Amino acid sequence: MKPTGPIPPEFANQRGDLAIAGRPATAWASAGTPLFVYDAAIVAARVARFRAAMPAVYLHYAIKANPHPNLLVAVAPLVDGLDVASGGELARALAVKPANAISFAGPGKRDPELEAAIMSGATINLESEGEATRALAIAHRAGVTPNLAVRVNPDVELRGSGMKMGGRPSPFGIDAARVPTLVRDLVASGANWRGFHIYAGSQALDADAIADTQAATLALAARLAEEAGHAPPLVNLGGGFGVPYFAGDRPLDVEHVGQRLSEALSTRSTVLKKSRFAIELGRWLVAEAGVYLARIVDRKESGGETFLILDGGLNHQLAASGNFGTVVRRNYPVVVAHRMGADAAETVSVVGPLCTPLDRLGDRVALPRAESGDLIAIFLAGAYGATASPAAFLGHPPALEQVAG
Amino acid sequence: MKPTGPIPPEFANQRGDLAIAGRPATAWASAGTPLFVYDAAIVAARVARFRAAMPAVYLHYAIKANPHPNLLVAVAPLVDGLDVASGGELARALAVKPANAISFAGPGKRDPELEAAIMSGATINLESEGEATRALAIAHRAGVTPNLAVRVNPDVELRGSGMKMGGRPSPFGIDAARVPTLVRDLVASGANWRGFHIYAGSQALDADAIADTQAATLALAARLAEEAGHAPPLVNLGGGFGVPYFAGDRPLDVEHVGQRLSEALSTRSTVLKKSRFAIELGRWLVAEAGVYLARIVDRKESGGETFLILDGGLNHQLAASGNFGTVVRRNYPVVVAHRMGADAAETVSVVGPLCTPLDRLGDRVALPRAESGDLIAIFLAGAYGATASPAAFLGHPPALEQVAG
Repeated sequence: MKPTGPIPPEFANQRGDLAIAGRPATAWASAGTPLFVYDAAIVAARVARFRAAMPAVYLHYAIKANPHPNLLVAVAPLVDGLDVASGGELARALAVKPANAISFAGPGKRDPELEAAIMSGATINLESEGEATRALAIAHRAGVTPNLAVRVNPDVELRGSGMKMGGRPSPFGIDAARVPTLVRDLVASGANWRGFHIYAGSQALDADAIADTQAATLALAARLAEEAGHAPPLVNLGGGFGVPYFAGDRPLDVEHVGQRLSEALSTRSTVLKKSRFAIELGRWLVAEAGVYLARIVDRKESGGETFLILDGGLNHQLAASGNFGTVVRRNYPVVVAHRMGADAAETVSVVGPLCTPLDRLGDRVALPRAESGDLIAIFLAGAYGATASPAAFLGHPPALEQVAG
Repeated sequence: MKPTGPIPPEFANQRGDLAIAGRPATAWASAGTPLFVYDAAIVAARVARFRAAMPAVYLHYAIKANPHPNLLVAVAPLVDGLDVASGGELARALAVKPANAISFAGPGKRDPELEAAIMSGATINLESEGEATRALAIAHRAGVTPNLAVRVNPDVELRGSGMKMGGRPSPFGIDAARVPTLVRDLVASGANWRGFHIYAGSQALDADAIADTQAATLALAARLAEEAGHAPPLVNLGGGFGVPYFAGDRPLDVEHVGQRLSEALSTRSTVLKKSRFAIELGRWLVAEAGVYLARIVDRKESGGETFLILDGGLNHQLAASGNFGTVVRRNYPVVVAHRMGADAAETVSVVGPLCTPLDRLGDRVALPRAESGDLIAIFLAGAYGATASPAAFLGHPPALEQVAG
């Protein structure tokens, strides 16, 4: 038997039928399976917790975590900005938020993407001097003043993060040492310089590591602003707030992050006194709000092991199969949807319908007895699920997606 | 500097402009990038090599490797059968091949999938006793005689294969010990029993390992047939033929496999004397026929490292980023498309446009100098590329796909 990760708090103490947004999973599944259900009220609860912990900073939602249009409709009014990573995401964001609350980061922006951002009025987080040159040329041709921020490749990294994005050579952002010159050039060009975007890592659960990184990021922003001779209107301090996926993971102490950030802001350098600050979150806002529901198609024994074979797998939930960004495969939290809280009766492996051994969503997990036709729920499906999986693989249908609230 | 894998033979000795099916990559790319080009003539060459090496066995194409409709049109007439892994793949196969040349394997087949297969006349490779019961019930209700084969979970494994699928508890197939009873039950039920499907592993480069597995599979099929008291019309011996992806990989000696298979077939058990045999190949037929072409959007320096940022990445070529079925990330063969054969001038990292550090297609590879606007080609893109990647991730456009020949 192998352990599973912690069930998110809104579901952890349920008994009997799993309820999502007050409606039984079996009722949700009547629309068909496999199915993602996203509960916008859980996202709203995360937003509220953030607001209470960090009242002085802006909150941006990084829609790459979950760009479902109906979820964006629900989340956009709750946050101060939307961060996008492509022209496709920009179009989705513009449908629900004014352009001046949208910023566009990501390496390799193509000219049509830069043009769409400039013409809309969204802010471009420049990833290189070459991109700056292209953006300025496009804006010049169009006779438009572009909103440009500078993404900094920080010389600090986020300790303990699942994905480090600072402190090393990187395709993301401009090395700190070259940033002041670029800022001066942008201002001199007549662009509307919006400030800095500094992202050091993601999926961290250690509050002090995040707070240390935020403090270092503030110090870096101050140093760059002083060297540039221009104060940034906005400093995007990045995100990095993680959620517990696996056994032994502890939830992030967001209030501790907020307390330390408040201290850091109160002692910030004079050059940043008039700046606004934003934190950009994706996974932390939406991961726990999503549940993936799949139906057991077959229950079989092989070599003394029992397999529950679902109607969906890594084609919808690649990360839960351990094949995306993780080295060691571990189990997400998985339950039999109508037996919440029931004692485990057996050890089973939960696999998808794909004809590859990679398609395993629960490896030797302890569950109550389940039969063909029963529903399996896999939690933490709200971020990097449907869109971060190879939906066309092996020709199975895409998952349904429904938003509650 | 890190090594790259071997360029497939049809491209390895080219100089200057890369030609795919006789047409320059730059001309192909005029349709837009990122782009997959599949050269059907290379697939035909692999088929011919297989036919010469193994004239006595049937050749099936496992379309999961690449189900592009135009490629299927080109490949279907060259092979004896198509193997599918879902109802979606079944529909694509039926468009280009008669049902009696199609077989459907895969765990967790849903009732509508079983019904579609039964009504079409395709063969179902049964993965469990439960699936057998459901298939028989569906056929009975429809008044149709189903074509049913039994997928065996073999008690042998394929040594050195990238993905082992035998010799262990498995969601695939029925444990060998229980197969004879099921065969007798199927025959007694009036079903048209088509034989065995036995798949022990994939992506092996060691000819003797494959030959040993084929010999063991033949022995297993004979033993099961004798115990069942019924001779199998067809034995699908699986596949497992690998292609060299990485530095140090050596191509499979297919002729040696064929010689040893011929010996094994000539001494096979009497119970298999009238059986036909098939080998099911996906990757080996199509991987080397595909080239992924992406354009450099940005060239940038960071921390002493040079990055070439492409307009496509792991959203189209997940496996090349090392995030699908591999533990250690290694480099696929990658070139600057108009400088084939040119000396390397620098060490660069080739990354996609996705805002994640996972999106790296070439890690510190030695290349001739390349600038924004130049084309990069990544080989071995014909199998498990476009459909095995998270196309919707981060909202970038899907790749184009074109078939030559």
